[in-house]
Amino acid sequence: MTSLQWGGRFATPPDAALLAFGSSLEDDLLLAPFDVACSLGHVEALVGGAIISREDGAVLVEALQTVAAEIADGRFAAFARASGAEDVHGAIDARVRALAGIAGERLHAGRSRNDQVATTLLMYVRDRAVRALRQAGKLASALAVRARIALDDGTLLAGCTHRQPAQPVLLAYVFVAWAEPFVRAAHRFAAVKAGAEASCPLGSAAFAGSNLPLDRARAAALLGFARPSRNGLDAIGNRDAALDLAHACVRSAIDASRIAEEIVAWCTPAYGYARLGDAASTGSSLLPQKRNPDPFELVRAHAAKLTGSYAGALATLCGLAPSYQRDLQETKSAVIGIVEEAHAVLDAFGGALATVTFDARTMERKALDGYTIATDLSDALIRAGVTARTAHALVGSVVALAESAGRAIDRGDLRVLADRSGIASLDAPLDAEASVVAKRTSGSTNPADVASQIASIQKEITALAGGTA
Amino acid sequence: MTSLQWGGRFATPPDAALLAFGSSLEDDLLLAPFDVACSLGHVEALVGGAIISREDGAVLVEALQTVAAEIADGRFAAFARASGAEDVHGAIDARVRALAGIAGERLHAGRSRNDQVATTLLMYVRDRAVRALRQAGKLASALAVRARIALDDGTLLAGCTHRQPAQPVLLAYVFVAWAEPFVRAAHRFAAVKAGAEASCPLGSAAFAGSNLPLDRARAAALLGFARPSRNGLDAIGNRDAALDLAHACVRSAIDASRIAEEIVAWCTPAYGYARLGDAASTGSSLLPQKRNPDPFELVRAHAAKLTGSYAGALATLCGLAPSYQRDLQETKSAVIGIVEEAHAVLDAFGGALATVTFDARTMERKALDGYTIATDLSDALIRAGVTARTAHALVGSVVALAESAGRAIDRGDLRVLADRSGIASLDAPLDAEASVVAKRTSGSTNPADVASQIASIQKEITALAGGTA
Amino acid sequence: MTSLQWGGRFATPPDAALLAFGSSLEDDLLLAPFDVACSLGHVEALVGGAIISREDGAVLVEALQTVAAEIADGRFAAFARASGAEDVHGAIDARVRALAGIAGERLHAGRSRNDQVATTLLMYVRDRAVRALRQAGKLASALAVRARIALDDGTLLAGCTHRQPAQPVLLAYVFVAWAEPFVRAAHRFAAVKAGAEASCPLGSAAFAGSNLPLDRARAAALLGFARPSRNGLDAIGNRDAALDLAHACVRSAIDASRIAEEIVAWCTPAYGYARLGDAASTGSSLLPQKRNPDPFELVRAHAAKLTGSYAGALATLCGLAPSYQRDLQETKSAVIGIVEEAHAVLDAFGGALATVTFDARTMERKALDGYTIATDLSDALIRAGVTARTAHALVGSVVALAESAGRAIDRGDLRVLADRSGIASLDAPLDAEASVVAKRTSGSTNPADVASQIASIQKEITALAGGTA
Amino acid sequence: MTSLQWGGRFATPPDAALLAFGSSLEDDLLLAPFDVACSLGHVEALVGGAIISREDGAVLVEALQTVAAEIADGRFAAFARASGAEDVHGAIDARVRALAGIAGERLHAGRSRNDQVATTLLMYVRDRAVRALRQAGKLASALAVRARIALDDGTLLAGCTHRQPAQPVLLAYVFVAWAEPFVRAAHRFAAVKAGAEASCPLGSAAFAGSNLPLDRARAAALLGFARPSRNGLDAIGNRDAALDLAHACVRSAIDASRIAEEIVAWCTPAYGYARLGDAASTGSSLLPQKRNPDPFELVRAHAAKLTGSYAGALATLCGLAPSYQRDLQETKSAVIGIVEEAHAVLDAFGGALATVTFDARTMERKALDGYTIATDLSDALIRAGVTARTAHALVGSVVALAESAGRAIDRGDLRVLADRSGIASLDAPLDAEASVVAKRTSGSTNPADVASQIASIQKEITALAGGTA
Repeated sequence: MTSLQWGGRFATPPDAALLAFGSSLEDDLLLAPFDVACSLGHVEALVGGAIISREDGAVLVEALQTVAAEIADGRFAAFARASGAEDVHGAIDARVRALAGIAGERLHAGRSRNDQVATTLLMYVRDRAVRALRQAGKLASALAVRARIALDDGTLLAGCTHRQPAQPVLLAYVFVAWAEPFVRAAHRFAAVKAGAEASCPLGSAAFAGSNLPLDRARAAALLGFARPSRNGLDAIGNRDAALDLAHACVRSAIDASRIAEEIVAWCTPAYGYARLGDAASTGSSLLPQKRNPDPFELVRAHAAKLTGSYAGALATLCGLAPSYQRDLQETKSAVIGIVEEAHAVLDAFGGALATVTFDARTMERKALDGYTIATDLSDALIRAGVTARTAHALVGSVVALAESAGRAIDRGDLRVLADRSGIASLDAPLDAEASVVAKRTSGSTNPADVASQIASIQKEITALAGGTA
Repeated sequence: MTSLQWGGRFATPPDAALLAFGSSLEDDLLLAPFDVACSLGHVEALVGGAIISREDGAVLVEALQTVAAEIADGRFAAFARASGAEDVHGAIDARVRALAGIAGERLHAGRSRNDQVATTLLMYVRDRAVRALRQAGKLASALAVRARIALDDGTLLAGCTHRQPAQPVLLAYVFVAWAEPFVRAAHRFAAVKAGAEASCPLGSAAFAGSNLPLDRARAAALLGFARPSRNGLDAIGNRDAALDLAHACVRSAIDASRIAEEIVAWCTPAYGYARLGDAASTGSSLLPQKRNPDPFELVRAHAAKLTGSYAGALATLCGLAPSYQRDLQETKSAVIGIVEEAHAVLDAFGGALATVTFDARTMERKALDGYTIATDLSDALIRAGVTARTAHALVGSVVALAESAGRAIDRGDLRVLADRSGIASLDAPLDAEASVVAKRTSGSTNPADVASQIASIQKEITALAGGTA
Repeated sequence: MTSLQWGGRFATPPDAALLAFGSSLEDDLLLAPFDVACSLGHVEALVGGAIISREDGAVLVEALQTVAAEIADGRFAAFARASGAEDVHGAIDARVRALAGIAGERLHAGRSRNDQVATTLLMYVRDRAVRALRQAGKLASALAVRARIALDDGTLLAGCTHRQPAQPVLLAYVFVAWAEPFVRAAHRFAAVKAGAEASCPLGSAAFAGSNLPLDRARAAALLGFARPSRNGLDAIGNRDAALDLAHACVRSAIDASRIAEEIVAWCTPAYGYARLGDAASTGSSLLPQKRNPDPFELVRAHAAKLTGSYAGALATLCGLAPSYQRDLQETKSAVIGIVEEAHAVLDAFGGALATVTFDARTMERKALDGYTIATDLSDALIRAGVTARTAHALVGSVVALAESAGRAIDRGDLRVLADRSGIASLDAPLDAEASVVAKRTSGSTNPADVASQIASIQKEITALAGGTA
Repeated sequence: MTSLQWGGRFATPPDAALLAFGSSLEDDLLLAPFDVACSLGHVEALVGGAIISREDGAVLVEALQTVAAEIADGRFAAFARASGAEDVHGAIDARVRALAGIAGERLHAGRSRNDQVATTLLMYVRDRAVRALRQAGKLASALAVRARIALDDGTLLAGCTHRQPAQPVLLAYVFVAWAEPFVRAAHRFAAVKAGAEASCPLGSAAFAGSNLPLDRARAAALLGFARPSRNGLDAIGNRDAALDLAHACVRSAIDASRIAEEIVAWCTPAYGYARLGDAASTGSSLLPQKRNPDPFELVRAHAAKLTGSYAGALATLCGLAPSYQRDLQETKSAVIGIVEEAHAVLDAFGGALATVTFDARTMERKALDGYTIATDLSDALIRAGVTARTAHALVGSVVALAESAGRAIDRGDLRVLADRSGIASLDAPLDAEASVVAKRTSGSTNPADVASQIASIQKEITALAGGTA
């Protein structure tokens, strides 16, 4: 029980089952490198305030660097599990004391687990925000590359709303639309990073500050924060940056799940638009012919689960009195769980997506199914002076006729529309390619515009990535 | 890759990262004993249908019993992790094949992972429902015992609503109120058990049933189900019993969290009603004088997290097409996660509760604070013929006077009330003990009634426990 | 401010904005008939305990019956909104006093809003549980009828898992699978009803019981409860039955959402399996040719929303101290919101489903796509003595060959399989109809078994409905 | 049915019940002013692209201004409800057509409900983000003012963690800690505003863009957006800004709920720290003496509910195919519900908080309870050269002694500590005021530092508010 950082006053030792219940070691082991960094910052504050000697400071720094090395090479985990510590912070403290002797007993001067945990968590948050920003950028970039290729191929398909065919679009245009949410996600992660490094809780001690003259400014600077936190009571119970990261992660997973749903549909024989590579498909234990899009189904399921996990993290904080309550430990583990799960989800999503091939021929064969050309007809009527409302009604009736005759829209329909509108003649695109070329607005599926959309996205991603270099 | 139960048709092997993403082995290892049982049931169906020989059946049963022993003594986990299997079902299959030779290759005849997983999960659900039923019963029982002791002591305190003192009650009455939700929880778990054993999916194969004459009735009977499932397509995608268990578990955790909140408050010096034992208290790394009620705070936090986890499990199913989709794997891991977490929560709750001592003296000293006797006065007025509305107003004004004078309600107030109501005289309880004794309704805090409440609860718990013996 | 049932002691009147914030009138107006019934029960308890005279009791009963009539004909809502009451209970109290004079001032004797609200809510829960039970039964029944028709037609389609074609099944078999969750839902609602009527809180007063000799048993019997509640402190804060109802409603909505997802897919031209009737389709404001499956999309979205609503209702209770806290008001409004929304969802689902027509020809044309016959081949090999594992691998390679040749499985493949297995010859179904007829297990898609599934479901629904008559 | 903007092709009219189910009019009526603004932007795009004449444009602008006036004075709601329109967009369209004649039939040219709804929603989001930013700033500001007063009074209390007394702090320091989350909330809302006005979907039409040369840039500029959206397919299904707003609102409500919980505790007689004003208190219908902190309880409950509502909004999007699906309608109503509920919550929170008075005397009387001075002793030992670990243990044992003797820490304890540490003498604060003055770190409860915290917060709020003027 020597690893507990408290206990002097108690007659009975803690119950082992209750200690195990309260332990967060398995959840927070991955915070180890950040806790070491945090302690290096605290040594800086102690030496800067002349609370410990430069010599003790040097001994502590060396011990912490040793621990950092043990974490990096994987040896630390076994030590931590064997230490009996409640959490990673206690385990590192125990290891430092073993390495640094009496100096080790001075490390916790003027520090509480409250400011230590809050600071360590922020450093984790910043690190993972950068990782997530890069991951989102990579996904957006991969989709932009796909868009470029599809644009060069000129692949067309029936764009849908309500899953019903609506208008012809370029496949490249769809890929750009798939990339956009990840560009926004990257911006969201950049904002999370900025929030995480805005202010450093270290030196807030339990919540009231310390009677020891800790040099908080030096610690904050060393750890890469903009400044020390303004109010210690707020700082030690503030989990805003961690929640912001968790939230941004959940949102990214949802973005991926929406595309995953589309790919699952496109991989069915009913659509036949896409084919998952062997490396990403799984088979069936009973049905030998199956090629199942499991990674995309799992992306979808994880995203749904994560919405609940985030709700749980938030619920933990509802009606929780300010300051530190032990409930915050579960917020920490909830956030870490969400962040790492979402990372795995986006990784798998990107990996599976890379194996997908798209079947341009099938897409184009069906591009006009469902009378996707109808809006081109209305637009032509409107340009000829017909009101939008009348155009909508006229084209609707023409479609109904064609549908009941089981045929496509043709030049004869244009003539009917012209007649009914009292126009001499009507010209409108009658095939998918003509339809996309006819688009006149910026941000449309017009090939030239799609080319500039791709260029614009690539530029934006490059700029975002640069900000984290 | 020999552990995968599919793959014959694929040119490229699965991507290792994607396989890892899709693996549920760490989540479902604890299903191992139930999967073995399920396979024993399937052997019964195969032999019963003369699909495999009695000899092969005997070899398989022996191999499965060996696996069961390896699971029980802990050896199996290492094998499973080394096997490369995607999940526990695949790992057991691999182990059976290693043990049973050619007979092992026949085990999966007429079975799909779909009906296997559905059946295994139901057996887990039934097992955990029984465990939870007992746990809830134990908590209710412990509280009933506490109630009995507190009743013998006659301990009184100010009952609250809105956390404001309202009326004097027996501490025993409070303990009975704390026990009641666990009695209802036990009933809920009994219903979950009944649902889990109602119908057996085994023999549904992938979803369409099998061309092999499996003896489903014998398998269902062996495994303790009431009957084989009625429709295979429904059976293999049905997770209702698992969700029902998860839901009941979350609800129990919430029940515990509500009492935990009360104990956290009662342990503050402001209340001073309760004291947590040393074995359940934790200290502070900075503040040497602290005695923190961590287990109860964690119970509260876990309950909040679990509400989210359940929402996530439900969200996974929303808009998921019927039949088997891989998304169901995450429902399985979500349910298992919830069930095991809730079990740990209730265990810790019970353990910590057992260490709590209650301070009768402090409770009784404050039992009349906040004019908790006021309702006794209104009731007296009503019995004397005053209307409820007038009684409420009259007593309200008397309380306001006493409050502004900083004194308790006394006989003088009774006189004032009598005068204002035009009654000759008014008699009403003026202390906490008289107040509880004055209660006339069943289900009240009257000591005699509380005694019968305790007896009734104990009888009900015994009956419930008997049902699972 | 005359409608507030408290306030005697306060110097300053409540702030209007805060009163509006605290008002639940708009949320609980639909509780009005149940509150009236609850008050009739309380009159019974007052008269039974000789707390009020028989004459006063008669006046109150008459006034309450008048209010009931005003609620039934819609006049009451306007009165309630104009009354300034915080909630429906206060509004009814005000109306009774206006109608019953001095007797009206006696109605609230020995009653608190706590036991009144708890009782009223239980009566609402029972009523809505019965309504939901019937609704679920109706849906299951409609699907069973569809199944009967589809069975008579012998319609076949490719059953899917992971949305990939897997094995041929009868459309009737799918409809039975769609019906099953609603049968289970009906059982769930029956259990909710039983829970709601198990014990009556009325007479618990604020939580401690009353000094007045209320006849709780007569009140409970009049209101249809099995017995008075056992412990008042528990009874007034117990929302278990309400949560159970909300939960069962959410689960039903999820059940509907899963079928809705399937129908949305089947209505696409890619599938062409189903067509939504004009009465349920909506069009587009821009695209004149659209036929959108909006009701099913909305069912799906509502189900997802409801999972969150239920999580919110649960979160409200997490860490909430036992007894009455005002937070419970939001639980009440959350539950009512969920219950009424889910009812609307199932109503719309049933209504839209009734307009759907299924295209047997298209289904059958695609029934063998995706080599859905493969499992029939493995089963044949297994019956010929080949192990399951070898059979799976052999058929997998045959499918791979056929796939690369772009052709269906044929008799030649049977010969190849026989050769490779060292069997003289192999016979197996090669078309969808032969495949379903070949099923040998109960609960399978074999036509005879499907017929008995339908009969069994219809019998079960009838029995359930009988229980609520 | 003339208000439906589609329908030409259908033989049967929509089912009334299904139309009602699909109607969002009651949810989106409050979008009316934003839809009118959006239409003004579209007129600009139509005229700018010479798609309609300047004359028709002027007629439309006048009609839209009339509708705006009817919305502002409340007349529009009745028209909308009577119009039979499915949503507010349809109702406004109908009204414009009634006012503008043939020009009205041209308004919808080149526009779909998809880009219209997306744009309208963004304008609502921006408006509400500004409102919320101001509200958060106001709350932070009010707390800063409270802090200033409490600092002038020098009020002290026992700061807590785990609800257990830990160290003395200034009440002003607590108020600053309560203000900080609202400062962060204000920043969050500023970011939401920036996201909402970044890009304008109008002109994306259904999703593919339009064949009509709409002047998107002019429309975007008129409506205050930075630029037109880059990709129409993304733009019409993008609900990111709306979700960001909903999320920020939920987080603010949680922030308020945490303070509400503290105030509920402080208002109990057990604490006696705070007293809710009569205007915010509610009484009991049975207990005449009650003063219940209902608004704060409701704040707590609403926050919990809102976590679920947000999870529901997210769940609606999980696995939803990109582009427009009708499910998005429920996202819209979910977001609006959350935003307006959170606004009411913060409003009530602020209003109730303004009525609370704090009892400095009671706080100060208890400021040393629980040995809150202990950390001052450890810090003194550390400054004298004792290691942190030894200091913690030594002070722990001294506290244990004092506790068992039932007395406070005194000079004698300092002597004991000096002796045991081998120090000549030890000086340390022994009262609450000395303790806070002894703090040496920035961000601490030292009075001078608290003064600068207040000044800093006030400056930050002013700067934030300036950004939205």
